[in-house]
Amino acid sequence: MIILKLGGSIITRKDKTKPTLNPVNLERIAQEISVAKIKKMVIIHGAGSFGHPHAQKYQIGSPIKNEKELARMKRGFALTQNSVKNLNHFLCHYLLKWGIPAIAVPPSSFITSKNKRIERANLEIVEKYLEMGLVPVLHGDVVLDEDEDLKMAVISGDQLVTYLAEKLHPDRIILGSDVDGIYNRDPNRHQEAELLLVVKSLEDLEFLEGARTVDVTGGMAGKLGELLKLASKGTPSEIINAGKKGILLSALKGEKVKGTLITK
Amino acid sequence: MIILKLGGSIITRKDKTKPTLNPVNLERIAQEISVAKIKKMVIIHGAGSFGHPHAQKYQIGSPIKNEKELARMKRGFALTQNSVKNLNHFLCHYLLKWGIPAIAVPPSSFITSKNKRIERANLEIVEKYLEMGLVPVLHGDVVLDEDEDLKMAVISGDQLVTYLAEKLHPDRIILGSDVDGIYNRDPNRHQEAELLLVVKSLEDLEFLEGARTVDVTGGMAGKLGELLKLASKGTPSEIINAGKKGILLSALKGEKVKGTLITK
Repeated sequence: MIILKLGGSIITRKDKTKPTLNPVNLERIAQEISVAKIKKMVIIHGAGSFGHPHAQKYQIGSPIKNEKELARMKRGFALTQNSVKNLNHFLCHYLLKWGIPAIAVPPSSFITSKNKRIERANLEIVEKYLEMGLVPVLHGDVVLDEDEDLKMAVISGDQLVTYLAEKLHPDRIILGSDVDGIYNRDPNRHQEAELLLVVKSLEDLEFLEGARTVDVTGGMAGKLGELLKLASKGTPSEIINAGKKGILLSALKGEKVKGTLITK
Repeated sequence: MIILKLGGSIITRKDKTKPTLNPVNLERIAQEISVAKIKKMVIIHGAGSFGHPHAQKYQIGSPIKNEKELARMKRGFALTQNSVKNLNHFLCHYLLKWGIPAIAVPPSSFITSKNKRIERANLEIVEKYLEMGLVPVLHGDVVLDEDEDLKMAVISGDQLVTYLAEKLHPDRIILGSDVDGIYNRDPNRHQEAELLLVVKSLEDLEFLEGARTVDVTGGMAGKLGELLKLASKGTPSEIINAGKKGILLSALKGEKVKGTLITK
């Protein structure tokens, strides 16, 4: 079984302030997944410009001080969920167009968190879909939080990858990003930046500036932390550039591609 | 707590073969729900032209004879789910526009059935959303079925109403339809047809032709069967015309409106 993460920056235009798809990438990525003919696969996608503007505006996951704030937060929660559901609909549309029987399993309908970490999740239905040969599609979402001050939280696609990997024991994890992998320095700011073929610890990075944007779910540092935690438990992952033609297809087929391997 | 069902025929154009919204009804209905200011409410909507054409084409819920049929059925299952998700997105959009914090909880992500009846459903998250003052929105959907020959089934909005009513014990159930209620005969075919103010048994109907259309989830007979079962357990329900201005608002406020009361 493969867990495939598709970053929000690859399926949406993350530079936009309003929800904006990247239909060129969506079409190509769906095609590459279709050609790879993977028998069992879970897809997890980020929220990109469909989620972050709402989550950031309403500061979902920050402590709620009074009733007025709670009412506003509930609105933000519902708006965020409806927007990421819309992105999920479009991704599934492209997957279905290319013959992949994609079934949405939105975290807001079966996961709750505690201090922003997944606390309860019944994965039985996800497992049943997998057994049937259907492709469960999860995504970065808002969920209810058991912490009385927070009440709600944002669960990133990366946290979902970690959680599902721990529970479902995939053979491989592929993370489709909009960069070639992890650099030791920000490649946009340092000519001498080098792509790290292997990362075993946050210390392998000279500066935590590999991410071009710092997003609401923690940017590259958060992402790497999740993946290193995963690697420490025995499941390595690969970060590849899903924005360039053919790399995702090769990675899915198990071929050696340019990218960063996160391992213990 | 109120369970409000919105029929697929009221929020979509059910006469269309392609998914088609009824934006005029959606806007007005969202406004009426908003004005009624109900504190705790679950909304369940039908699939209308977003669900029935797919479910009917792929015959979801009929026995699967071979691998080829299974592959085709899985595609139909995924297509149906993605389409009703899209309808749910639009309904939530209108609800949010009118200030109602609507949260989708799609049956395909937490319910499984056995021979087309709901068998397992963890309603904890629905209950938590209700406690928070958020409005859970469920809908007619496809789910996995434990019957080895079926493997998949369609769960109608009406079956969801019955199931949730049994588990959540609502104070009232309101069913927004596109007709004034149940007639003793088809009002389109019999001038002498009378609106039944109360129905206690299927025998109160001279002919089971109150529904203008026979849909994939069983039409009016199926609907009435579900509601009578509910009434027999002590929870009456009202069928009202949500296609006419102001009736839903009055019903939500607890005012006496034209319609049919289903009771034991």
